[in-house]
Amino acid sequence: MTDPENRFGDMDPETFRREGYRVVDWIADYLAHPERYPVLSRVAPGDIRRSLPADPPEQGEAFASILADFDRLIVPGITHWNHPGFFAYFAITGSAPGVLAEFLSAALNVQGMLWRTSPSVTELEEVSLGWLRQLMGLPDTFEGVIYDTASVSSLHALATAREAAVAGVRASGMAGRPELPRYRVYCSDQAHSSIDKAVILLGLGHDALRKIESDAEFRMRTDALERAIAEDRRVGVVPMAVVATVGTTSTTSVDPVAAIAAICQREDVWLHLDCAYGGAAAIVPECRWILDGADRADSLVMNPHKWLFTPFDLSAFYCRRMDLLRQAFSLTPEYLRTAEAGTVQNLMDTGVQLGRRFRALKLWMILRYFGAEGIRDRLSEHMRLARLFAGWVDADPDFERLAPVPFSVVCFRAKPRGKAWSEAGLEALNQRLLDAMNASGDVFLSHTKLNGRFTLRLAIGNLRTEQRHVARAWELATSLLERS
Amino acid sequence: MTDPENRFGDMDPETFRREGYRVVDWIADYLAHPERYPVLSRVAPGDIRRSLPADPPEQGEAFASILADFDRLIVPGITHWNHPGFFAYFAITGSAPGVLAEFLSAALNVQGMLWRTSPSVTELEEVSLGWLRQLMGLPDTFEGVIYDTASVSSLHALATAREAAVAGVRASGMAGRPELPRYRVYCSDQAHSSIDKAVILLGLGHDALRKIESDAEFRMRTDALERAIAEDRRVGVVPMAVVATVGTTSTTSVDPVAAIAAICQREDVWLHLDCAYGGAAAIVPECRWILDGADRADSLVMNPHKWLFTPFDLSAFYCRRMDLLRQAFSLTPEYLRTAEAGTVQNLMDTGVQLGRRFRALKLWMILRYFGAEGIRDRLSEHMRLARLFAGWVDADPDFERLAPVPFSVVCFRAKPRGKAWSEAGLEALNQRLLDAMNASGDVFLSHTKLNGRFTLRLAIGNLRTEQRHVARAWELATSLLERS
Repeated sequence: MTDPENRFGDMDPETFRREGYRVVDWIADYLAHPERYPVLSRVAPGDIRRSLPADPPEQGEAFASILADFDRLIVPGITHWNHPGFFAYFAITGSAPGVLAEFLSAALNVQGMLWRTSPSVTELEEVSLGWLRQLMGLPDTFEGVIYDTASVSSLHALATAREAAVAGVRASGMAGRPELPRYRVYCSDQAHSSIDKAVILLGLGHDALRKIESDAEFRMRTDALERAIAEDRRVGVVPMAVVATVGTTSTTSVDPVAAIAAICQREDVWLHLDCAYGGAAAIVPECRWILDGADRADSLVMNPHKWLFTPFDLSAFYCRRMDLLRQAFSLTPEYLRTAEAGTVQNLMDTGVQLGRRFRALKLWMILRYFGAEGIRDRLSEHMRLARLFAGWVDADPDFERLAPVPFSVVCFRAKPRGKAWSEAGLEALNQRLLDAMNASGDVFLSHTKLNGRFTLRLAIGNLRTEQRHVARAWELATSLLERS
Repeated sequence: MTDPENRFGDMDPETFRREGYRVVDWIADYLAHPERYPVLSRVAPGDIRRSLPADPPEQGEAFASILADFDRLIVPGITHWNHPGFFAYFAITGSAPGVLAEFLSAALNVQGMLWRTSPSVTELEEVSLGWLRQLMGLPDTFEGVIYDTASVSSLHALATAREAAVAGVRASGMAGRPELPRYRVYCSDQAHSSIDKAVILLGLGHDALRKIESDAEFRMRTDALERAIAEDRRVGVVPMAVVATVGTTSTTSVDPVAAIAAICQREDVWLHLDCAYGGAAAIVPECRWILDGADRADSLVMNPHKWLFTPFDLSAFYCRRMDLLRQAFSLTPEYLRTAEAGTVQNLMDTGVQLGRRFRALKLWMILRYFGAEGIRDRLSEHMRLARLFAGWVDADPDFERLAPVPFSVVCFRAKPRGKAWSEAGLEALNQRLLDAMNASGDVFLSHTKLNGRFTLRLAIGNLRTEQRHVARAWELATSLLERS
């Protein structure tokens, strides 16, 4: 310990200042050159665990030596989401103003369960979610709340749909109630696995989720949705909710929101929009159409930690029936009662998690630092880079593109000309190509399957990614294909 | 913007370094003197919201001006959980090594859903949870995982209990299944509201939660538990889980874990221990007894962000049947398949949230910085201060203590001698006293009700709290009582 006299306290402020500078320097150097590291960590399973003592330390240690171990032992096991060649899953950016905001938030260490436990947490959340809502062009009939992840946002959306559909579910639940029917939730076969997990957790059962087939461009087929609802009604299964996706995980396809909204309105079924990734694009005027009809949705999730430069985690949930969500979950034990409860929002009433970090701070700082203009420029640039890469794929007779590119993700695969390929042969070839590209250390791509076809995904979303990094990915793809 | 040329990038590293130093300085100054601020924010509802523009900014701004607004507009709406006079709810500390770890974690911005998305996230979580488990004296039959909050940990505990109790619940859910009985979850009348929210979310219904009466010292009565289980079985209601609490929210009472474990074993019912606050005390040898019998529990939650100096959020969940939890929730879409899946842990399989922050980093740094010895010293000191305050209460004929003090929370109230008080009169008096103490700006206490009695709570848990701050609380209580 740096201060053995201080047996009961925290690190003293001057040591904090010195060690804080040291950490700032480490981060500044790191962010200046994340490409010094291989994107994808090269450690083997168990390497990190075995490098650390199995037993807890008895004596305290100086922070500087812990930081040195972080650099020496932990960083080699990091996959660098900050690397400009990170193209896997959805590429993200924890931008500098967001990182500094998280630092401040950790230092304040406030807990936003009640308005009074820090009024700024509640009210800055209201303000910054209002800004984000306006940037996306959503009407003010949507009230917002911040959760950690889209999994939790969509869980609350479907819990609220359940509250609306199942009489007495809060008090009586669903088991041992022979009067209840079975319920159904609908999403496309391209929807995210978080929807599956939500129906399981809510006790609706995985079978309650009906995956609606998508069209040739991976968008939910509304005729199939209508048919499924009618079929279910005929056998007494009650439609509870439809989840439409704006920017699916595999191809970033956009379900036809307006048509689906019309069906939901007619059928009186809850409509939840999963815009976790794609929602950010609505900030760009050319993409505003993706949320056409969203004003008729009941709820919507958009993740600033995906494509809005926000350090993980921050999921923005909007709902037109927040009263119903509160009805489902609010519950105030005596030790959390406050005099002002009727006049303010207490965040604990809006969901299952009592404790809330001060996440709005980073959203507010990021929106101010970049401004609407700066955000539009950056998102447009990511989409330009994706179209550029897609053009290279399209122009090369040894590759093929497997989906449209509405945003910043390109789905493609190698299919060398002059040979009759089986699907299995193409999968093996592309898996080898993917592994070889990722082994380069310069890029990290992930894969998916589209209509049974093994598909490489190039996802652009990091502010450090420039055209030369995208070009490097293409150079690797073409040169490594020759050796695969 | 500091760099108008940089239209598509993030803040440049040298600006980050300069602004990072500025933030370090702000935090160092703040942590040196949090008592410059009133503990409880003095803003009125809407003040913060009205001080900010309702519309999002079009142009970006320099970070320094945003930081200045943070200090000028946001900080007045902060209730200072770092203030040494913060005695409300559970007092906590976001210790310096933890704050610096969160800063690093935000900068790395990795997402631990899969082992390969950063092996260090998964393996450091295994190592640091192993350390914590050993410090609490729990056997290695418990496997651990980190969630955000105890609400989410207990939710997963009860979801796993449901998986064990309800045949086919994952696939078929509970609605429209006339063959299913009703289920019951038991906890004491002192248990935390997160248990209520979990049974509601899981679709068991709030009525499925049976609150067992507690004894004169606010511990679950095991005879009442046995009677309730027998009664339920007689009418065909199936006991699913018992939640015992080690450190209840109102009084920090400790349910008789060993006796409850014996009942659960005999009845074949899942036992979950909510040690969110109290679990930390098991690190101190004199308190080791609180977890006697915990080796027979099925699951357990302990929150390092409560009484283990960890910035919010980090909830440690331990389970003897993690296989069952994975069976309930694991689900791997094609885009998340990896070659190493069989040989490593992928955190996404252990719960509903796909994305995971790198939370283990702060736990590891904190355990190393303070060491077991430093942790024991600090927790013991907090308990000493609480006993000291309790002694002052006991010695004053105008006050009375309303519960035992097993840890660091004191429940008390004013009851001036020489007058025949009604409960309503005492409540009004103590509410006035509480408001007056909190209005001082020097302390912040919260309240609860015990057997209908309005009770003040003094909770000690901040590393900045010294004897003089506890003495100040007592001085305020006695001097303000004269004027109340």
